Amino acid sequence: MIDFKIDNPTVLHFGKDVINKLGKVVSKYGKKVLFVYGKGSIKSNGIYDSVMEQLQNIQADITEFGGIKANPIVEDVNDAVELGREKDVDVIVAVGGGSVIDSAKIISITIPLEASAWRVMIQMAKPEKAIPVISVLTLAATGTEMNQFAVLQSDQAKKKLGIGYKQMYPKHSFLNPEFTYTVPKNYTAYGIVDLIAHAMENYFGKGEATLSDRFVFAVIKEAVEYGPQLLNNLQDYGLREKIMYASTNALNGLTMYGRESGEWGVHDMGHVISVLFDTPHGATLSVVYPAWLKHHKEKISDRITELGKAVFDVDNADETISKLEAFFRSIESPVRLQEAGITENDRNELEATMIKNKVNGMHHKLEREDVEKIIDLMYAD
Amino acid sequence: MIDFKIDNPTVLHFGKDVINKLGKVVSKYGKKVLFVYGKGSIKSNGIYDSVMEQLQNIQADITEFGGIKANPIVEDVNDAVELGREKDVDVIVAVGGGSVIDSAKIISITIPLEASAWRVMIQMAKPEKAIPVISVLTLAATGTEMNQFAVLQSDQAKKKLGIGYKQMYPKHSFLNPEFTYTVPKNYTAYGIVDLIAHAMENYFGKGEATLSDRFVFAVIKEAVEYGPQLLNNLQDYGLREKIMYASTNALNGLTMYGRESGEWGVHDMGHVISVLFDTPHGATLSVVYPAWLKHHKEKISDRITELGKAVFDVDNADETISKLEAFFRSIESPVRLQEAGITENDRNELEATMIKNKVNGMHHKLEREDVEKIIDLMYAD
Repeated sequence: MIDFKIDNPTVLHFGKDVINKLGKVVSKYGKKVLFVYGKGSIKSNGIYDSVMEQLQNIQADITEFGGIKANPIVEDVNDAVELGREKDVDVIVAVGGGSVIDSAKIISITIPLEASAWRVMIQMAKPEKAIPVISVLTLAATGTEMNQFAVLQSDQAKKKLGIGYKQMYPKHSFLNPEFTYTVPKNYTAYGIVDLIAHAMENYFGKGEATLSDRFVFAVIKEAVEYGPQLLNNLQDYGLREKIMYASTNALNGLTMYGRESGEWGVHDMGHVISVLFDTPHGATLSVVYPAWLKHHKEKISDRITELGKAVFDVDNADETISKLEAFFRSIESPVRLQEAGITENDRNELEATMIKNKVNGMHHKLEREDVEKIIDLMYAD
Repeated sequence: MIDFKIDNPTVLHFGKDVINKLGKVVSKYGKKVLFVYGKGSIKSNGIYDSVMEQLQNIQADITEFGGIKANPIVEDVNDAVELGREKDVDVIVAVGGGSVIDSAKIISITIPLEASAWRVMIQMAKPEKAIPVISVLTLAATGTEMNQFAVLQSDQAKKKLGIGYKQMYPKHSFLNPEFTYTVPKNYTAYGIVDLIAHAMENYFGKGEATLSDRFVFAVIKEAVEYGPQLLNNLQDYGLREKIMYASTNALNGLTMYGRESGEWGVHDMGHVISVLFDTPHGATLSVVYPAWLKHHKEKISDRITELGKAVFDVDNADETISKLEAFFRSIESPVRLQEAGITENDRNELEATMIKNKVNGMHHKLEREDVEKIIDLMYAD
């Protein structure tokens, strides 16, 4: 392993009744609250009311900003930043899935800067401080509730970029598995794909870290065993909690410590698909990952096989990839572009944008030829 | 799972060169340093010099307290507390294994109290604040470097007690696997037993937490695979780091989150053996655990089998226990009392002290009859 530091400051509150502590926790950071959420589903399922009750109990001065999209866009973040500056907010309460919490994290570092959000995303403006973020998670997928990362999309630039700064960890995150009960079957499946992909992006990175590998296998096995059961029982607390806790652990550092780098080439390609076709993030990953593995199979055969042994009880790379693809298929997440509604007619635009955006991995670099071959595999019968 | 919180504030610095940051980190907490260590091995292996150099670089006002014993005793802690009060220290730097760091943690909460250390251990005095502790670990075993627990022995009371308070997490811990190179083969083996036992004490606790179970298996598999290799290559960096990192993860919360309680009956019995016969902690656990498992076999057969499947690739409880016992034997840690130098002549005292000290588990309660049977099994051929 390389030298590393474990220093994850997010306090995670997990369980049925944790929301009762939200007000008290928020009040430690101030009264002026920017309450950020998405397209309104939290209003129909009661989560909005639970959060409002907590904020009203502490006589918070609440500024609401709703409407964050599933693939969050820079315009919304800029509007929220402006509002936050105007109201001089003390703390941001973000209630939603990855898109809302990622947006809140970017808002939190952009407010104190003399800059727009996209300048922050292209790393021309660097954060020094941040408005504290407290998250309430409503979708098990990205792990953003306990890490320093966030992604944001610019339709104008046709880019979806990611950043990570120490200042971006939520101070506290509240995870009640019941708050994910109304996530529909397809988005529940995309969340399962996302958490598996996160563990794999760390696993296929650079450097030996055997215990971190075992944690990768633990997280993926949890998802593979209980994910399909959950899709048949969307309101089962025990199954929702398993997937929710697995998704946090897939990307809170645990699967990464000691490695030189992660991989992230699959995510980079997936982001292009989302930007062009508004495909849900997890659905892009179930298409890209099998193709990426097939393309790199010779080079990392041992690594793929080790994963397959641990997770699927198979003993070669081909079978591992087949099993993974079959698993994605079984939970009805697309494994080919066509299944995500992307046709041969879209091929040129897809390829051109991937090349233009210079999609790449951190460990396994992607040349133009690699990208073309992976796109072929994503269209293959 | 039950509702739980992840809130581990220890910053862990892991690797070859992390000690270079010690001075800077210490200086954040003040100049007046209480430097606590053990019986002097750190002076012969160069670790003392490395730490002193860091402290001198920041012009620290250093008060040394050496001589903490392998099974730490209350008199030493009281002496250190007195010294710390007299010098009005700002920060404690603890350099050693579990005994030194545990002692430092108890010193850190006792200094601000108007109480002796044993009153703290019997929970008659409760901490409100603590002198910050910064640890430098020299033995991979107890996990104390990243948790809130500490044990201390009173020869007078013939007791070894454990406590745990939020204030007792080290602020920072520095783990350089090279600092464990001079740990002899037997103590290296006892450390491996200890980390396995910690993971199992969580696993055999109360309540379902499947991902935490998988983390238990991950930690134990790491120890079972690489532990024996390490014993044949005591100065192999890669093997030392694996065991060191596994021991931290065995007892930093990861193997416990979501459970109602841990078990800890085996530790409670092991502590009595240490108190009476000065047996190294890990060596007591390799004797007690197989006996405890044999005694509880019928009641928790499924649980034992699940562990055996994951770790040893066997499919029943008997084989799991055999494999575990064989593993302890293979690393030359005792699996019977006689092998630890405790004879039939000691049986009465052992049994009487266990009864008098009311040894017990948190989940599986131990009646007098259980204790007697487990002692029989610890003496069995």
